[in-house]
Amino acid sequence: MRRFVIGSARNLIESSRQKYQFERSILSSSYRFLSSSPAADSPSSSSSSSTMAHLVSLSTINPKVIECEYAVRGEIVTLAQKLQEEIQTKPDAHPFEEILYCNIGNPQSLGQQPITFFREVLALCDHPAILDKSETQGLFSADSIERAWQILDQIPGRATGAYSHSQGIKGLRDTIAAGIEVRDGFPADPNDIFLTDGASPAVHMMMQLLIRSEKDGILCPIPQYPLYSASIALHGGTLVPYYLDEATGWGLEVSELKKQLETSRSKGITVRALVVINPGNPTGQVLAEENQKAIVEFCKQEGLVLLADEVYQENVYVPEKKFHSFKKVSWSMGYGEKDIALVSFQSVSKGYYGECGKRGGYMEVTGFGVDVREQIYKVASVNLCSNISGQILASLVMSPPKVGDESYESYSAERDGILSSLARRAKTLEDAFNKLEGVTCNKAEGAMYLFPRIDLPEKAIKAAEAAKKAPDAYYCQRLLAATGIVLVPGSGFGQVPGTWHFRCTILPQEEKIPAIVTRLTDFHKSFMDEFRG
Amino acid sequence: MRRFVIGSARNLIESSRQKYQFERSILSSSYRFLSSSPAADSPSSSSSSSTMAHLVSLSTINPKVIECEYAVRGEIVTLAQKLQEEIQTKPDAHPFEEILYCNIGNPQSLGQQPITFFREVLALCDHPAILDKSETQGLFSADSIERAWQILDQIPGRATGAYSHSQGIKGLRDTIAAGIEVRDGFPADPNDIFLTDGASPAVHMMMQLLIRSEKDGILCPIPQYPLYSASIALHGGTLVPYYLDEATGWGLEVSELKKQLETSRSKGITVRALVVINPGNPTGQVLAEENQKAIVEFCKQEGLVLLADEVYQENVYVPEKKFHSFKKVSWSMGYGEKDIALVSFQSVSKGYYGECGKRGGYMEVTGFGVDVREQIYKVASVNLCSNISGQILASLVMSPPKVGDESYESYSAERDGILSSLARRAKTLEDAFNKLEGVTCNKAEGAMYLFPRIDLPEKAIKAAEAAKKAPDAYYCQRLLAATGIVLVPGSGFGQVPGTWHFRCTILPQEEKIPAIVTRLTDFHKSFMDEFRG
Repeated sequence: MRRFVIGSARNLIESSRQKYQFERSILSSSYRFLSSSPAADSPSSSSSSSTMAHLVSLSTINPKVIECEYAVRGEIVTLAQKLQEEIQTKPDAHPFEEILYCNIGNPQSLGQQPITFFREVLALCDHPAILDKSETQGLFSADSIERAWQILDQIPGRATGAYSHSQGIKGLRDTIAAGIEVRDGFPADPNDIFLTDGASPAVHMMMQLLIRSEKDGILCPIPQYPLYSASIALHGGTLVPYYLDEATGWGLEVSELKKQLETSRSKGITVRALVVINPGNPTGQVLAEENQKAIVEFCKQEGLVLLADEVYQENVYVPEKKFHSFKKVSWSMGYGEKDIALVSFQSVSKGYYGECGKRGGYMEVTGFGVDVREQIYKVASVNLCSNISGQILASLVMSPPKVGDESYESYSAERDGILSSLARRAKTLEDAFNKLEGVTCNKAEGAMYLFPRIDLPEKAIKAAEAAKKAPDAYYCQRLLAATGIVLVPGSGFGQVPGTWHFRCTILPQEEKIPAIVTRLTDFHKSFMDEFRG
Repeated sequence: MRRFVIGSARNLIESSRQKYQFERSILSSSYRFLSSSPAADSPSSSSSSSTMAHLVSLSTINPKVIECEYAVRGEIVTLAQKLQEEIQTKPDAHPFEEILYCNIGNPQSLGQQPITFFREVLALCDHPAILDKSETQGLFSADSIERAWQILDQIPGRATGAYSHSQGIKGLRDTIAAGIEVRDGFPADPNDIFLTDGASPAVHMMMQLLIRSEKDGILCPIPQYPLYSASIALHGGTLVPYYLDEATGWGLEVSELKKQLETSRSKGITVRALVVINPGNPTGQVLAEENQKAIVEFCKQEGLVLLADEVYQENVYVPEKKFHSFKKVSWSMGYGEKDIALVSFQSVSKGYYGECGKRGGYMEVTGFGVDVREQIYKVASVNLCSNISGQILASLVMSPPKVGDESYESYSAERDGILSSLARRAKTLEDAFNKLEGVTCNKAEGAMYLFPRIDLPEKAIKAAEAAKKAPDAYYCQRLLAATGIVLVPGSGFGQVPGTWHFRCTILPQEEKIPAIVTRLTDFHKSFMDEFRG
């Protein structure tokens, strides 16, 4: 095990043994692939069995792969898929009619409808042969037809089936850069944009670029979206945790960053970058502009790359908070290319669009020298390009219909309907969690998640121990078995040792929320009744 | 520089210094990011310059990234893009009217039209709202509408915008497995299928799984498709080369495999896997079934994973050769799950479909234990899923229209038209190369490439040296400047030291081939006249 995790606000680590325990504690996951009960939907095959001798075994594969964990698609989800299959074949197999996937930010899987205009344009670009046909006028809005022509004209030979430039189609990057300029009020350069298959591959690319060995550290929030811990593990680096302060609404304190940076440096770790997720995942907080300025200043002073996960930039639900990109904040401080290295990640999977399956996204890379950016381009070129539909969609979300366009009214009604409903759902769930015995839940300011804290009775912790589960994982499994609701235990994201949480998305359709609240409340009451001291 | 390359049929390597030179020799690329003349389309920005001090520099990024090379999108292509821009602004800037990209297997970029049925289905799945509309009947074939409904019914909630199962939508994997069974006559398990954004990410996943350190080696053909060398470099492993024998039509000799395996083992390298590209890239050969059997036997005996790049399985142009999947070959030998670990890569980018921009593909993974496959699934889950359009397209290419379907006739006419034209283009170009002074070209049996060998005059080699170029790169640059034709120098793929080649795709549209032949022939004659001794 080459990777180790260092640093803690709680002075927990002294020896490397303790370090290991610490890592297990803050980042242990419910995703256990070697568990004794592989569930039905896991990739098992009738033609092979684990008793057979195979050439490639766990003891001969890359240990970084084994170490990597990804909780939001972990054991609980595998179990949920198994229950779903059981319900399909036998509808009364369980005390619920359907599985409610609150584990992952996947809005359309729970019934959210795509934005019509976006899908019109995608369909027309997929099959341009119909653009000239008269029937098409009756099926598609005029501005979707016009936009499809515009986009096709930006693609050499109008070939939507060709590999594009490895950073993405130039005309689409122009559109995205223009969208960033409108958002921020500062110039954006299309040559800084790298289009990717969702934001995840962009995060991997930056980790691959920055991590040379386990002596390179990446400052990550705890709790964090486990893509970061997974990617750092796969690339052989060290996750340097900093804690978000639950007591101040998941506040990000620069004093905490400094402390963790110093601790890790004293251990011989070179900290390369700071990951900030804003709006937060799994925590749902939205950073204040003053806080962001202090973070920028910290990165500049300490020479850290700022990796800004801004995929929830459209998901802000409270009037007192507003999304500010880190680029806008640092440019407004008078900083530019030579002052701070900044990568902003954006995705078509989130916002009001929620087009997860399209795998579109981009990163805007500023403050890197031409020579380093050419290395990023080279790595991008090894995979040729991201998918063209995802590229087109990324340009659409950064340049949606405008006032006066035929689709504008329907588009804005769809967008506002989704966002206001998400805000109501967030508030309802937040209130419901706060009414549960032993549960406290911070305000859902943004993103798609709540991350309530649960004080579990001692007897429940003992029962979890007996079941060889982390206590929060035990709670989530019991909840799933009783209600069909799928949450992710806090241990998959990291949490202050000794505290327990779970992540719950705000994505089930609004009409289902009351029933979910009732089921959650009833389950929780009976769980607490069972284990209360 | 941690990675080193070992082994050579030519006994070239003794010291580590020589090893390094060997690597540079067989795999040196024309892709020089630090060249003194960055071209216009490279990712440069007006707001940053290399004279500025930046936080992240080449000396502080991951050296594996710097080491990685990818010739098919290298320096020559960057130069070509620059020339193209110049032509656009000033049509008579160069002695040619257009750039002919023969550097990469990107058929639609050169005018190949997509298969209508496939695009109809994709468009309908992108915008299912039109499926019920009467105008749709007039615009789309009946079977494309039916297929779209079938596919939507396989997707939970018909949500084409949701993340799918991380291996891909189960119903689509069922379809693909059924297609493999039809192709091979042996059972295929949908749980063995991992859908990916093209084949490249699947190759990366396997390299990530198998490579633990620079002591792990991967046997790769020389010449090879540089994805393999790039991926091995990025994952910190060792490329163990084996030479294809140009004299026997790029024959793959098991004796050569054994020799390289033994050499590498004597150097302390653990060889994990054998990469075979069939039909070959860049070489265009199609393996005989007997040869494949010997390769399977070799992998079984030596305990190597067989990584079978079979993305050109539909691209066979000579009646005496036929594509046989390695799975079919090994199953027909009586081997199964417990005998050989086999990964077959397939892509929607090649074949007659050529849908590169859709980024669809899959790998079929057999002979791995459940525990290891769960690790592969875990790594897949970190990126959530591949894009749904690409997944749908992968199912379509493995299950195209059948006799009796409304689209069958147009579909088969489109398919046969493309494949027979490719066969004619391959033959015409092969003959043309063989008529050039000092050039010999093996038969194009399959894939999309020719890889002719060129004996360059001593004076040309000296001129290349003076220009600080590899001789084949020098030839290709001169060709580009004179004709607008873009080839990739052999040094990007690896070649026997002291020999020179280039790769040329057979993809320019057929009506352009005569002019290309004339331009090539004229250029070559004047080049040889200039440098003939």
